[in-house]
Amino acid sequence: MYPRIRDLREDRDYKQRELAEYLNCSQQVYSNYELGERDIPTDILIKLSNLYNVSTDYILGLTKNSKRNK
Amino acid sequence: MYPRIRDLREDRDYKQRELAEYLNCSQQVYSNYELGERDIPTDILIKLSNLYNVSTDYILGLTKNSKRNK
Repeated sequence: MYPRIRDLREDRDYKQRELAEYLNCSQQVYSNYELGERDIPTDILIKLSNLYNVSTDYILGLTKNSKRNK
Repeated sequence: MYPRIRDLREDRDYKQRELAEYLNCSQQVYSNYELGERDIPTDILIKLSNLYNVSTDYILGLTKNSKRNK
């Protein structure tokens, strides 16, 4: 389960519907990513990382530092 | 396709068979990760990141800097 993608979305005041549109998936599928009921594919992980300008390590909870190295 | 997981493995002189054992998957499945024929699940991504002590961003080709932030 990757709670950071919910926190990142809420910090930016995005709706699940908006994320689903950005990611080209249904709101149900996106919701399942947030709930950890569906594994996040790498292409989605990369898109989320780009949207929020954070590292994939941060999204996956491997670090508290959100910065992506150049 | 994520060529870095092949490069990381070869740099350490690991065999695909050894990686498959570490990851608890078949050698065929592991080979498909290297070839980009099967998406890398997040749990596998994290295990590879831990094994090689590199960031998941590096594995995914998002940065040239392999270092994982603390």
